[in-house]
Formats: sequence, C-alpha cells, structure tokens
Amino acid sequence: MTNGILGLRDVVSIKDFSRRQIEWLCEEAEKMEDVFRGGSDALKGKILATLFMEPSTRTRLSFATAMYKLGGQVIGFENVEVSSMAKGENLSDTIKTVENYCDAIVLRHWLEGAAKFASEIANVPVINAGSGTEEHPTQALLDIFTIKREMGTIDGLKIAIMGDLKYGRTVKSLSYGLANFDVEIYFVSPESLRMPEDVIRYLEKKKMHIEEYRMLDEIIKKIDVLYITRLQKERFPDVTEYEKLRGSYKVDIRTLSEAKPNMILLHPLPRLDEVDPEVDRTVHAKYFKQPFYGVLTRMALLKALLA
Amino acid sequence: MTNGILGLRDVVSIKDFSRRQIEWLCEEAEKMEDVFRGGSDALKGKILATLFMEPSTRTRLSFATAMYKLGGQVIGFENVEVSSMAKGENLSDTIKTVENYCDAIVLRHWLEGAAKFASEIANVPVINAGSGTEEHPTQALLDIFTIKREMGTIDGLKIAIMGDLKYGRTVKSLSYGLANFDVEIYFVSPESLRMPEDVIRYLEKKKMHIEEYRMLDEIIKKIDVLYITRLQKERFPDVTEYEKLRGSYKVDIRTLSEAKPNMILLHPLPRLDEVDPEVDRTVHAKYFKQPFYGVLTRMALLKALLA
Amino acid sequence: MTNGILGLRDVVSIKDFSRRQIEWLCEEAEKMEDVFRGGSDALKGKILATLFMEPSTRTRLSFATAMYKLGGQVIGFENVEVSSMAKGENLSDTIKTVENYCDAIVLRHWLEGAAKFASEIANVPVINAGSGTEEHPTQALLDIFTIKREMGTIDGLKIAIMGDLKYGRTVKSLSYGLANFDVEIYFVSPESLRMPEDVIRYLEKKKMHIEEYRMLDEIIKKIDVLYITRLQKERFPDVTEYEKLRGSYKVDIRTLSEAKPNMILLHPLPRLDEVDPEVDRTVHAKYFKQPFYGVLTRMALLKALLA
Repeated sequence: MTNGILGLRDVVSIKDFSRRQIEWLCEEAEKMEDVFRGGSDALKGKILATLFMEPSTRTRLSFATAMYKLGGQVIGFENVEVSSMAKGENLSDTIKTVENYCDAIVLRHWLEGAAKFASEIANVPVINAGSGTEEHPTQALLDIFTIKREMGTIDGLKIAIMGDLKYGRTVKSLSYGLANFDVEIYFVSPESLRMPEDVIRYLEKKKMHIEEYRMLDEIIKKIDVLYITRLQKERFPDVTEYEKLRGSYKVDIRTLSEAKPNMILLHPLPRLDEVDPEVDRTVHAKYFKQPFYGVLTRMALLKALLA
Repeated sequence: MTNGILGLRDVVSIKDFSRRQIEWLCEEAEKMEDVFRGGSDALKGKILATLFMEPSTRTRLSFATAMYKLGGQVIGFENVEVSSMAKGENLSDTIKTVENYCDAIVLRHWLEGAAKFASEIANVPVINAGSGTEEHPTQALLDIFTIKREMGTIDGLKIAIMGDLKYGRTVKSLSYGLANFDVEIYFVSPESLRMPEDVIRYLEKKKMHIEEYRMLDEIIKKIDVLYITRLQKERFPDVTEYEKLRGSYKVDIRTLSEAKPNMILLHPLPRLDEVDPEVDRTVHAKYFKQPFYGVLTRMALLKALLA
Repeated sequence: MTNGILGLRDVVSIKDFSRRQIEWLCEEAEKMEDVFRGGSDALKGKILATLFMEPSTRTRLSFATAMYKLGGQVIGFENVEVSSMAKGENLSDTIKTVENYCDAIVLRHWLEGAAKFASEIANVPVINAGSGTEEHPTQALLDIFTIKREMGTIDGLKIAIMGDLKYGRTVKSLSYGLANFDVEIYFVSPESLRMPEDVIRYLEKKKMHIEEYRMLDEIIKKIDVLYITRLQKERFPDVTEYEKLRGSYKVDIRTLSEAKPNMILLHPLPRLDEVDPEVDRTVHAKYFKQPFYGVLTRMALLKALLA
C-alpha cells in the first residue's frame, strides 16, 4: 500500500525502494541532525509500537530515540515470554490488537515474511526491523546513508561485503539497496557461506556488477568500502572448519595497511572478534558512527510515514 | 477509600462500581475519542507505574497508550525476574517503594486479593489490572462500554457468556458489572467449568436474570451479545475430555448463521482456536474493536483518578 | 573528566565527591521537591539510557522518574538476555553504540570497575548505578541526603552500619561518602562479614572515627542513625551458621525500645526479614522515605550533568 510523501505506507523490503526514494530519505536524514540536537514536536501525540520477538539493542533503542527526538511516544515489548504470545496468541491477532494503540508498528520477527504478512493485515504502517534471514530494510537505508555521508557519493564506489553472506540479513538487504546505484560489489565469504543463488540472480537482473571472492587480500587494495559481518559459529556443522576460517575473515591493522587511505570499514554490529579492537582507532573505522546515522535515518523515515 | 469526581480512589473490584459510576465512565470514554486523535496535556508531569507480575500485552500497552495520550509518563516492569522481587522482596515493600515514584499504580498479580491488599497500603490510587481468578475490573468496564457503543444500550439485552467460567477472571468481572443493568445472562460452559456457586449467588442476590446452559445452540437464536473466552487446556485433568469439549465451544461461520443479524461477538483475547478466523470478517466480530474501546475507557478512568 | 556546575562529568565513585559537592547536591535535591510536584521542561529533548545488567526495581525506576519529572525521555534495557549482549557483544561496544542515542548513560553491572571503564570510553556522562561489590554512588548520595533531611545535620552524628559489610556495595559507598563529614561510624557485623581491611584503611586515612562491633546491643543506646542491610544467605558456606546469626541481626520493636527517641532507621532495600514489619509503623522507620529522597537526589544530579 502506498501513501504520503515517501510514496510508501509500509517499510517491508528494501526492494520496494527506488533510487529516488533512497536519495530523498538520505537528504531528509541529513536535515535531521539539527532536529536531533534541538528536539522537535513533529510527532507529538503519536505513538510507535516496537514489537521485538528476537533480541535487539541497536534497532530497538534507535527507533525509540528517533521517536522521542521527534516528540512522540513508544510502547511495546522486547521479550515474547511476557507478552500474550506466551499464551499462544498468533502474530495476526497481536497485530490486530496493537494497531489500536499506535500510529505505526515496528516489528522484528524470526520468520521470513512476518513483516510482509503484518503489513497486509494492519491498518497502520508496519516497519520491518528484521525478519528471517533476508530483510532488514532500515539497516540497509542507514548503511547507504552512512556511505553517502562518509564518501560523499554512492555511484562509482567499489564495495566489498564480507562474512556470513548465506544467513546474514543485513548483507542481503544492503545488496538489494545498492542495486539501485552504479557500484561494483565484491562478495567475500567462505564457500559454505556464499551469497545464495537467488540473491545473485536478482542482482544480476538489475545489471549490478558482482564479483565473488574467497579471500579479502585479493581485492583489499582497490575497494572504497569494506562491509563486514560476523561469522556465526553455530552455522558451522564442524567447529574445526569454523576455527580454520575465522582467522581469514578477521580484519586487523595489518589487513588495513594495504587499503586505500580513505577506505571506510562498516559493520552492522554486534561484532565478536572479526574486527580487531585496534582498528577502532583508525580513520577507516566508521562502525560506531553507523548507529548515529541510523537514528537520523529512522527519524527521516518516521517523519515521512507519520507526520 | 474514595475521592475525586468518580467517587473512588482505587479501582480494585468492579463490585465497587454503581450503575451511575459505570454510566458516567462510559460517557467520559465516549468523549475520549477526540482526545485520542488530538492528544492532550491533561496529565502532563504525572507518572503511572505499571507493575505486571504476570504476562500481558493488551492490558499493559493499553494503559501505557492511555497515559501517553493524556500527556503523562509511564514507569514499571513486566518481568518479575528482573525486579527486586527476584531478590525476595514482598509485594508490600514493592508498593511502599514504588508509590514514591508515581501518581498511581496499575498492578497485575497472580494472587486473589493482591490489588485489594495493595490499595490498603498504598498512598496513591491502585488500579487492579487482573488479580487471581476473579477480578479484572477495567476489562469489565471496557466490555460494558463496547456493548454500549455497539448496541446503543445495555438494558434489555440478552447476553451469553461462554467458555471457561470457573477460572476465567474476565467473565466474572463482566457478570458483576452487568448485574447493575436490566439484562438476561446465559452462562454456557462444560459442566466441569461452570460459573462457581458463590458468583451465581451474588448475582441472584442482585436480582439478576441468570440461566445456565451446556451448549450454545440452545440459545444462539435469541441472544444479542456473545462473549466468549478460551478453554484453557491446562485446566483439564484429562486431555481427551478437553479434545472432546473444545469442538462444542468453537464459534464459526456455521454457528453464526443462526444468530440475529446484529448480534455482536466479543472476546477478551488472546484467543486460541475457539473463534474461527473466518469469523473475523463478519459484521458480528467486534473483538478487535474492544482494544480500542479499552484505551478510551482507561483514558477516562486515569483522567478521573489523576487530573 | 570534569565539567559543568558540579565539576564532574561522570558519577563513577562516591570517592570522587568532595564535601562541598555533596552539600551542594543536597541543597539542589531539596529544591527539587517543588519540581517533583509541578513538573519541569528543564531536560526536554534529552534522553537518558538506563542499561541494567543486573536486576533492579528501585534504582532503575528512580532514575526514570527523575528524568520524566525533568521533562526528558528514557531508553534502555533491564534484561541482558534480550539485548545484543546475548549475542556476545562486549560492554565496550555496547557503550560505543548506545552513546549515539543518548545524553547520558546509567549503568548497573556485576563487575567491579565496569562503570569506571565505561566512563573512560564514553563521550557522554556515565552514572554508576551499582558495580561489583564496592560502588553505588547515587545510593550513597541519597542516603546522605536522607540523613540530612531527617536529622538536620550530618556532622556530629553517631551512625551504625550493620549487616553484610563484606559483600554489600551500599554500605561501602555510604562509608566513603560519610568520610567527608565529622561523624562516628560503628560497623556491626558477624566476624565473617566484616568490612574489608582496605576499606577500613581508606577511612582511617581520611581520619574517620571508626569502631567495630559484633552485636548491635553494645551501641544501640547511643546511635543517631542505624543503617541496616540484609545478610545474604548465599554468602554463607554453612547454612547453620546463617540461621544462627540472622537472629542477632534482626531489628524489631524490642530492639528499638532501647534506642534514642529520634534515632532513624535506614535500609537500602530490598529487605528480607532483617527488619520486622512491626517496625514500619514506628517513628524510627525512614526506609520508605529513602526512595522519595532518592528521586530528588537523582533529579538534582541529572540536572547538574545535563541541563
């Protein structure tokens, strides 16, 4: 369903966003920095429901902060066990209930398609805060805004995306979002955690320039952006395999010594040991600025959907 | 203890409400619809504490929404395990502490009498959000407001209340509340989950017209309101008994084909399978409007107690 | 790091506070009583993050109330299991993320030194809401404010501190804070739960008058303040030892019959059975006023750090 200045009622998939919409949101996010400092009553009297059926710190607090900075309020839960879902209520009934209390719903759910389903039955906007292994559209938007802010452009960049490309939802959403731009993408992962075939095919249909690698050192010298995610130990059937691979996907000072001076390093966080803490102090590290850009992006989005 | 425009300081039991008080609250709730849309500063600077010692989505979020729409703030916990009660603090000490932080306390507790006890020791208003198996007064108030809004009247109606009448607290609170009106009540339940004798006797003393049935089909044709609650599997010592009975207490399209065209179907939610999802789309289904009426009712109540 | 009217950016340890700073905060807290009643927009648009890695009712709700009364907003979590720390994120990364969302961080952590560490890496003020077994500075400040309010002075008082002095953090923080004043301190505890040597030495270096006792009855007649904490059963290797001792460290009406008429009894709460509920009704009992003074103290602190 569509409406409003953004032309979308719901934010379910980054695939629903055009280049124009992404660029417009980046411009709006830019303007939000002043609102963040000074506060605003733009959404006074409005209520956002944040329903998190999976653990989260960043996304939940980021949406809450965005709503508060715009003068609105937040209700919700972050623990299914103390909600009525613990009594066996299905997602549909939870949505049909909560929509009575709020002006928009932010939903994180472990199931593929949960946000899509919720958006189809809700009579208020639904924002996908992560569903299954594929979609996390607001993360993709904030990642793109971060690149834009830090590099000044998206077009023309060479962007490496490294780590668990098979199960990670942020890497897929980011790839879908970047498909609107003129970029070269290098996927770097172990053979067993390659970007799934259907994602590759979607991107190729969009005429995206894609290359796949096993090791970062093959391309480290030429990239402008390195987006890294953690290898999740529990994805490996064989722990020896994990231990063998994790060393190859770690970024440290030595790795960065070969990078362009202005290459930026992004990470959706949380990280485990895939980025050495030493790296935090380098000019490359931008992963602790991403959360701030995330608030600005979500402010722009909430204002577009609710004001 | 009594005070204020409502004539009550605490909301512990629906039995404490006269017909006049219920009617007044329904009138106030009616007016709250505009305030809900436009927002208000009526309770600016006031703080509501919501202390939930049992899982809840609806009641907790509904009170929070009501408070926010009136310009107030909310503190509290929804998980005993992260509160000081996890360190062994008793309810009395928790209340004597929290009353220092707030202007009213909303309490859900698994024990019969917990809210009554809390109201006796607290120096701020205490609102019972469900205690034990008997009391849930704000649910009764919102149920009555829903009937009034949807049917235009309470007096003269024939109201069936069906499901687990033995352990459900919403059905008892609703019955106590309806005893103030000129209605006919039909209790429909399995023999083993009949409305307890002491409740029946209380209602009879109030000259309420009561009939008891085992099956809905005996009365479906003549009722104006069908209020249904779930059969809780865990209440049955014999699972075969449960499986046998649940079919008889399910409402589907076929069941409703015999009902009056303007009969309304209510449910406190959450539901499991006692109302077929097909029914949601019929004109009878009002159970997803109840949560909205609930916010209006609680806004009226909070304003009466705190403004 | 220091700045602002208080001369401190962070509140990590009560040891960082001078007598002048404590007195100034007590004066400010005094003024906050009117603000508490009337509300304020002093911190409008500001956001406080409350990160609780250990259970809490009092401290968390107290900070939230203080922030709301000053017109600010609150984000955070009270359950590590639904945060990104459940995915293995370390404290440093959580802090470097959350600082992007807020104007100050309130942190409770089970580790000694956690708040100190957080304050060193954060670019917003960090307030220690309890770390390890030693520090709980805002509790010490509110305890001192309570004594000041109830007794009119700190100087000249004889103050007994009784219970688990080895593992309790409130008793140590209070002692450090009182070391700025001209008081006599009597530590009362079982041999096995004595105040640790390093704390004693710190206090002696500050020229504090300290005496140690095994039994309260040796000094009950001459003290002005009795500060009691619970004996934690789990600290005793031998449960018989615990059962034997707990009786000696219980305060009841009989105990108080020997006390000065205006002696005040304080407790950081929660209590188990170390103070008999009968005592609540006596003029000595001030432990349910402490939470209120706590809100005033934290309002003064937040305003000093953030306004």
